[in-house]
This record gives sequence, C-alpha cells and structure tokens, in this order.
Amino acid sequence: MTSSLPPGSTIGIIGGGQLGRMLASAAARLGFRTLVLDPDADCPAAQLANELIQGTYDDAAALDRLAEASDVVTYEFENVPVEPLRAVAARRSVHPPIEALEVAQDRVVEKAFLNGIGIQTAPWRAVDDPQEIDHALLDLRGDCILKTRRLGYDGKGQATIVAGSTHEGVFESLGGVPAILEKKVPFEREISVIAARTESGDFAAFDPVENVHRMGILSRSTVPAAVGEDVAARAVAIARTITERLGYVGVIGVEFFVGTDGTLLVNEIAPRVHNSGHWTEAACTISQFEQHIRAVAGLPLGSAERHSDCVMENLIGSDVERVPALLREADTLLTLYGKREARAGRKMGHATRLSRGRGV
Amino acid sequence: MTSSLPPGSTIGIIGGGQLGRMLASAAARLGFRTLVLDPDADCPAAQLANELIQGTYDDAAALDRLAEASDVVTYEFENVPVEPLRAVAARRSVHPPIEALEVAQDRVVEKAFLNGIGIQTAPWRAVDDPQEIDHALLDLRGDCILKTRRLGYDGKGQATIVAGSTHEGVFESLGGVPAILEKKVPFEREISVIAARTESGDFAAFDPVENVHRMGILSRSTVPAAVGEDVAARAVAIARTITERLGYVGVIGVEFFVGTDGTLLVNEIAPRVHNSGHWTEAACTISQFEQHIRAVAGLPLGSAERHSDCVMENLIGSDVERVPALLREADTLLTLYGKREARAGRKMGHATRLSRGRGV
Repeated sequence: MTSSLPPGSTIGIIGGGQLGRMLASAAARLGFRTLVLDPDADCPAAQLANELIQGTYDDAAALDRLAEASDVVTYEFENVPVEPLRAVAARRSVHPPIEALEVAQDRVVEKAFLNGIGIQTAPWRAVDDPQEIDHALLDLRGDCILKTRRLGYDGKGQATIVAGSTHEGVFESLGGVPAILEKKVPFEREISVIAARTESGDFAAFDPVENVHRMGILSRSTVPAAVGEDVAARAVAIARTITERLGYVGVIGVEFFVGTDGTLLVNEIAPRVHNSGHWTEAACTISQFEQHIRAVAGLPLGSAERHSDCVMENLIGSDVERVPALLREADTLLTLYGKREARAGRKMGHATRLSRGRGV
Repeated sequence: MTSSLPPGSTIGIIGGGQLGRMLASAAARLGFRTLVLDPDADCPAAQLANELIQGTYDDAAALDRLAEASDVVTYEFENVPVEPLRAVAARRSVHPPIEALEVAQDRVVEKAFLNGIGIQTAPWRAVDDPQEIDHALLDLRGDCILKTRRLGYDGKGQATIVAGSTHEGVFESLGGVPAILEKKVPFEREISVIAARTESGDFAAFDPVENVHRMGILSRSTVPAAVGEDVAARAVAIARTITERLGYVGVIGVEFFVGTDGTLLVNEIAPRVHNSGHWTEAACTISQFEQHIRAVAGLPLGSAERHSDCVMENLIGSDVERVPALLREADTLLTLYGKREARAGRKMGHATRLSRGRGV
C-alpha cells in the first residue's frame, strides 16, 4: 500500500512525450518533483521536469537510477518494456500495475482478458501465420482488420481485409509478426471513458467523450458524447470493472464502439492518461493529469465533474499553422507540446473550445 | 514593436519565485521555452523552467547572458534593480516597461504619478527625516502610516502613527531611510483589478477581486468583489488609464481602497502578475499567467471572462498542514510552489474554491 506522498516527493515518469509533459506540470502544481526517463534530452517532458535521465526504456542502469531517485514510478505510454520494469517494481511502487501493461501491450491478451471478465469486444481470432487467416475469416464472416498483436498505435500496424478478396501478402506487409484478426463491426459512434482508481479502490470517471479519428489518429473529442444516460452509465461501469479486475491505480482510457442499438464493444484500453482526456484541463477543475498524479501519489481523487461542455481538437503536423487563429478565439485553451519540428502525423498540441451552459 | 514570438522562442524571466514558476508553466503551455534568472538553483521557477541562470538581479554578466539567450525578457517582482536592467532593455524587449518599475519601486514616485494623471490616492507626504513627520502629521490630520519609500512588501517596512501620540524612534525603526507618510483612510473594503495590455494597446481586465489581508499579507481573494457595477467599472477604467500612461505591456495588479460612498483610492500598483489574480487559473479559461505571457510575447490577449465565482486562499507557513483536507474538497484547485521549508509568513501555495452558477 502506497501511503500518500508528501509534497516535495519525487515522481518518476517513464517516457517524455506530451503526456509526460502534462503529467510533470500537474505534479508540479501539487508540489511534487518529477524525474523523466527518455532517450531524448530535449523531449517535451524534460523541458518541464525537475530532472531527466537520458536513456532507453530497457536500459537497466537508467531504470535503476530512476527507481533509486523516485518515490513512486509511473509511465506515459503502454509500450514500456515489461521485463526491465519488473526490477523497478521490486524497489518502488509502479502505478499503473505491470499487469495492465501486459494486457494492453498485446491485442490478443487484451481481448481475452476483456472477454474473460464478461466484457464484449468485436469478434476476433489470433493469427500467427498467413494460413490461419483463411480459417479465421470463415469463422468471423465479413470484412475484417488484421492488426499486429503488439506495438500498434495511431492506426499503424493495421490492414483491412475485405470479405471475399485475397489477403495475399497482407500478413507479411505488417512485418510477418503475430497478429489478430478482428471483425469490422458496424458502429454508430466511438466513445471513450477516462477514469481513475486509487489503491484503496476509490473510483472516479469523467463523462464519456465522443471521438472522431482521421487517418487512424484521434482528431476531435466532444463532451458530452451524444449517447443516452444508460449507455454512458454502462460505459463507466465497464471501465470500473476493468480497473477493479486489474487492481488498477492511476488514470485509464477505455475506448468503445457504440452500436445503433446502444451495444458497447470495448475497442482497446490504454493504461495511462489518454488523448481523449485532454479536454479535462480546460473544462474540469481537476484534469486527467492531476487525477493520475493524485492516484499514483496516494492522494484522494478529485471531482470528475466538468464546468463546461467542450470540443478538443488535436493539432497534427501542419495544423500548428492554425495557432494564430486559435489564439484569437475566446474560450479556447491552447496547449502546445514544445516540439521543434511539425512533421506530418506528429501531435504538436491541442485546443479545447469551451461552450457554457452546462450549469452543474 | 515586438512582433509575435513563434512557438519555441525563449522568454527570460527575472526572479524565480512562485510567480515565475506559474509564468514558466503558462509559457510552456503556449510552446515557449523559459530561462529564469535567480540566485537559488532550486527556486520554485527553476524547477519548471527549461534553464536557469544562477545569479543576483544586479549581476551584469548574468543579465547579459539572459539578454543573449532570450527573445523577450520579463520579471516577476517589482524590485528588480533598474540600472542593470537598462543594459538588458538595450538589447531585448523588456516587458512590462522599466518606467513601470520606476513608478512601482518608490511609493512617493508612485503616488505622484497617480495623482499627476488624476487618480486619487490616500493623502500623503514625503518624509526624508524625522523632523518632517511633525509637519506632515499636521497637514494630513489623523492616524497615519509611515512606510519606507522603497523595498516594502507584504506589510514589511511600515509603522502606524496614531494621531496625537509620539512618533519618537519610528522613523529610525524603519531603517532611517526615505519614507512616505500616508493618511489612514477609512474604507469599506479592499479590491484589486488584474488587467493586461498589449503593445498595440489592446486591454483586458478580469473582474475586480475583493481582498482580505492578515498581518499585512494577502490572505483571501473573493470574486466577484461585493461592489456595484459602477464601482467595478471605475476600477477597471483606472487600471486602464494607468496602463495607457505607462505604455504598459503585460499584466498589472492595481490595489484599491473602496470608501463607503464608493470612492476609489489606489493603494498601490504591482507591475507584474499578482497574488490576487491566482484565482484566474481555476475560474477562467486563460489565467493571468497565460495572459501575461501572451502580452509580452506579442500574442493576442485571451478572454478575461470567468466561468465560476470563487474564493482563493493563500497557504502561508503552517497553513500547508491543511493540504490533505483541501485535497478532499471537490471543486478546489490546489497549487503548491515546490518550497521545501514552510517558514512562518512564507507563501507556500494557494487554493481556489469554485462556486458555480455564474452561468456566463
């Protein structure tokens, strides 16, 4: 059991991207110091952290220094190598738990875990070689998506297989690695729940968010999602079940497909703060970043109520050219990540436009 | 004329206390880098800034490095030595202008400036030696406060002289330095206006705040202040006049005494972000810190509207013991400054409690 960390304690963060940067900022507001592990000395999070350890995520010596100098360790992305992290966990509390990483890192493990605790997903089959695809296609019937089991993100490592067409070379095009075939399910909208759980089992969820992706990357999140109260409540209940079964500590993002009949299928879970939760910085008193820091530091969770409705837009690549116009909008909070180069597909920042009148 | 700074530019900040820390955080959100000059390598702002130059505020070499490495320079406190700063201003834009520092650093200059542009203050007399006090007391009639002209803050460097009593030793007790005798004016409440002005003359003011001091230190700020719309509008108009006459760029804090008849007397002006503006972080989309960064970086000002009413409380010295309780309050945003030692009278953090229903 982590007792609550006093101000001045150090939170180690593995990964120094924009999520780590916003975590570092939230940690500082609560009086914590931050220590970031990242290969890049000028990464977004290092610019705000108290200190940086420059190293790769499987560098045992770097991880050892991180464990030594931190009072608790967390991470900002789900592809942290698990084995090296166990040595850290042997010395310091690591939140969220390594079990959550193991589940989130492998789409087959993830789906099996979810189905095993009674949570619906799209139908799926594990596919370890091209020959298995035919059998799986027969089972699943209809259009499918072949995805690598590991290391996919933002739509990378995926290919659609249209029913009845050839899939020659598709398996190889994804690198010839173990994969999962998922049935394409019809859905009306995509939503996500950003929730937090403490070690003592307290739970709080922000209202479900409606998400629109473009080229596989989150483009826009709208709060509230256009779903009924029952759908929203079921989505939150599913997120709660997931966190309880994982003994989860921290913020989690759970993505859903919503069917026309209100059916909820979990698409994936992210054991970390989540892009579709960035709006909480602008529309809530306590952001997802502070909520995560509170949870991993053993502090009580904040309220997840919001004071405004809002729409969050990601600024990807050349979208940063819109910054001057966004700065002229009233009620828009702009956040940039301190990245020097605006490459195509690179997340450079986000903007949350508030609309009033929720009147909580 | 400062053209607008592109993301990635560096903002130099003289002074690394909590105000510099919150400025650094706001600058990072807008994609700027920050460089802080402070004598203490572990000062609150250095913990969040990209870089620190360790040095005193009159260290010519340190200031030269600051000017060299910054695209624009600002400061977080009004007692920055003016002469060394001129060398910086010769190389880089310094905002707010040095003229504002000169006015704010000397209570006699400040009062003379204000009265000279038609703004009322408490009656006052300059007092350079103890003999002048008698004459000044006769002029001002009634209880007075003797204050050092320079370097007073948080109630330091002040002594009350009750009408008819002796003032022997009082002048000497303040260090025997040039002083000002101010008449104690009856007032119903203290308010402040936090306003911002850009180089091109755009102006925006947050709603007036009502302030309560304890032992000379700001204890609590309530928004909105319990004054009529006419009083609020006059206070904002006075703040605007001050910024225009100073060619001001950045955020300014203007403190007022409000008489029972609604008379407004300016108590003092602070050419910087202001403790009584901390609530803006919690109750507005754009905080005073972002507003200041926008102004000094040549970006358009944000909206100064607030989405909630609120009360901000300073956490001074042992008040930090209330942190666990404050973390349990819904709708309270807590901000700690990263100071290791909670000495008596030291500002350790603040908490803003929101109340809804303003419904802008």
